[in-house]
Amino acid sequence: MGTLSETILGAQAGSFSDKRIDKAFCHDGTGVQAKVIYDEMGAPGIANPKACYVIYDHIAPANTSQTADLHRELREFAIRSGMHFSDVGGGICHQYMAEGRVLPGEVVIGADSHSCTLGAFGAFATGVGASDMAGIWVSGETWLRVPESVAIHISGSLVKGVEYKDLALAYVTELGMDGATYQALEFLGDSVSSIPMEGRLTLSNMAVEAGAKTGLWYADTVTREYLARFGQSCTDQEVKPEATYSKEIHIGLDDIEPMLAVPHRVDTVKPVSALAGTRLDQVFIGTCTNGRYEDLSRAAAILDGKQVAVRTIVTPASRADYLKAEKSGVMGTLVEAGCVICPPGCGPCLGAHMGVLGEGEVGLSTANRNFKNRMGVGASYYLSSPSTAAASALTGEIADPREVV
Amino acid sequence: MGTLSETILGAQAGSFSDKRIDKAFCHDGTGVQAKVIYDEMGAPGIANPKACYVIYDHIAPANTSQTADLHRELREFAIRSGMHFSDVGGGICHQYMAEGRVLPGEVVIGADSHSCTLGAFGAFATGVGASDMAGIWVSGETWLRVPESVAIHISGSLVKGVEYKDLALAYVTELGMDGATYQALEFLGDSVSSIPMEGRLTLSNMAVEAGAKTGLWYADTVTREYLARFGQSCTDQEVKPEATYSKEIHIGLDDIEPMLAVPHRVDTVKPVSALAGTRLDQVFIGTCTNGRYEDLSRAAAILDGKQVAVRTIVTPASRADYLKAEKSGVMGTLVEAGCVICPPGCGPCLGAHMGVLGEGEVGLSTANRNFKNRMGVGASYYLSSPSTAAASALTGEIADPREVV
Repeated sequence: MGTLSETILGAQAGSFSDKRIDKAFCHDGTGVQAKVIYDEMGAPGIANPKACYVIYDHIAPANTSQTADLHRELREFAIRSGMHFSDVGGGICHQYMAEGRVLPGEVVIGADSHSCTLGAFGAFATGVGASDMAGIWVSGETWLRVPESVAIHISGSLVKGVEYKDLALAYVTELGMDGATYQALEFLGDSVSSIPMEGRLTLSNMAVEAGAKTGLWYADTVTREYLARFGQSCTDQEVKPEATYSKEIHIGLDDIEPMLAVPHRVDTVKPVSALAGTRLDQVFIGTCTNGRYEDLSRAAAILDGKQVAVRTIVTPASRADYLKAEKSGVMGTLVEAGCVICPPGCGPCLGAHMGVLGEGEVGLSTANRNFKNRMGVGASYYLSSPSTAAASALTGEIADPREVV
Repeated sequence: MGTLSETILGAQAGSFSDKRIDKAFCHDGTGVQAKVIYDEMGAPGIANPKACYVIYDHIAPANTSQTADLHRELREFAIRSGMHFSDVGGGICHQYMAEGRVLPGEVVIGADSHSCTLGAFGAFATGVGASDMAGIWVSGETWLRVPESVAIHISGSLVKGVEYKDLALAYVTELGMDGATYQALEFLGDSVSSIPMEGRLTLSNMAVEAGAKTGLWYADTVTREYLARFGQSCTDQEVKPEATYSKEIHIGLDDIEPMLAVPHRVDTVKPVSALAGTRLDQVFIGTCTNGRYEDLSRAAAILDGKQVAVRTIVTPASRADYLKAEKSGVMGTLVEAGCVICPPGCGPCLGAHMGVLGEGEVGLSTANRNFKNRMGVGASYYLSSPSTAAASALTGEIADPREVV
């Protein structure tokens, strides 16, 4: 006993724990489903509405009248129940929750697979399905099997043009897509204190791509300073010497180069340099993995004063990210370069609107999944960092960002 | 003989004229259909590709793989044929053409009903269906019955909080939705020289809502100064004393108050004051009628430092409008007020994505049409100016902008 999961959940790996949920969130997709199950349960009331968040991001604004009908029903339910509600354009649930709404040590459950993102705050944050979310609405609790943990030791520092997304693709590949199933990742090592919150969020976001329940960072100065911007305070979490890991991997940041997950698996990665020149139909910069202000800012630095050669969709992760990009001139640079700015939310990531690909088209995306047909039936796409995406947008072909930064 | 239509088309009202087309444009909706007809004709080649424009605005970016497939096919055809091509995010066809691409005296045909918008430049601009567009691609020409003309004499000046959109709703109501069928409107009178190009575009845009082929303005100093911004020059067009009109109406701008077209007809108008307090589910500011920089700017002035009380979708008419709103801080004001900014294009206007309404929902839109089920099955919505839309967004109820400006 001694991993961060064990400490937060208060029980040893392998045991089962009933936990009161500090924050429970869902989006328009899973929320609608959870509401159906809640109604089937006889609508018994919400145990702790102030811990519950409903955040519209997946198909928001509505793409059809049917979607709008479902939106209205869930919107009215959430507001009437006293839950927190974020309407269309507020941003992606994971980023919205990351803006001062999750604190270290909390148990955070999201009805979305990438809820592991919030492990970046040292919270035990993981995803469940809609029926579990309905259960949490009613009881305020859920049960969890306390996971074993995988340690990812990070040393060194990134070279120019390489991003934490490249590290994320590297660790997913090293572990494999089921290499950490029902385990928690812990990011450790000499370099963690130098990794900013946006990098931590990107790295935690992809934990589930290796099968992990969550990706955890011990709260530290970076966490404290980030949360202070939202008027929140916290104390540091300490790595305990007695913590034991089922697996330990070591990654030197200096060894990481720009990476691409190739169609149609996240854990099948090649260096960008090996695929340079591959023709693209669309570039997409956004998502809960890489739609934050810092991501847009890095892309803008590459696109500044130039023109994209292929249609390039940019979707800020949240209204706050949009506004920051607005005020700082990043958005202006992106628009002048010919990018198409879509409203905060998931954008085309789930293949429902705002840039779905067609049969045979090839896309490059900063998202976390490139599963077959996800972002367009018969399309294929690569996953990369925002820098690689921006460099590639300039030529309409996969390009190495180290050659343009 | 002497109306602007007769002068441009070189023949008397009622006669038929074969005309070489100076500019022919279509969008992703009608372009796809025109391509089908063109192929059925045996794909005989494009007579004058440099006069042809294909502009993606209706469902752009693509909402489904099927849309993306159609986009790709038309995109490749347009580029291969040597036509001008504007991809997703460039803006609405009418606004794109209005940015220095249409000159006084030209014959301009668009495969969209609101192609009458470009009459604002003293061009004979009107809409056709997709099969006519395919014919123009092949022949470079079309035939037109030279229309009779209706004179709209404008005097006085608008009071604060009232916009040219309110005048547009007023004249459509005065004429009725078939009051000018197959005629041309001519905007005349003491006040025309003081009406800026954005106002003229709004007024011409709605000509078809009274059944008119086009809405014409004689090129003058306003036209010359506007076109000079795009590096274009032109000479003034003169109203000829021998021009005769089938009908003449007189409107005093001082008498116009904020207006609303009520569900489900454009020509059924009530004063905003009579409907103040009507609850709204959504406000939409954008479209070829009112998505220009000046429209967004007026909305921003009302929303500055405040928060919208209802979801508010803003869709700039073109990339240039977006960028201008960006650089001037208008966009930042709108985002801070809680608006959801969608990419340049038609937005939810045609009910295909980005803010479709649900059953029973009530919307307020700055568009030109509120036909039943258009922007959402079972929804109803009102049409207004951007100022009325912004004032109403602040309370979530229809509100008179004169009380907040």
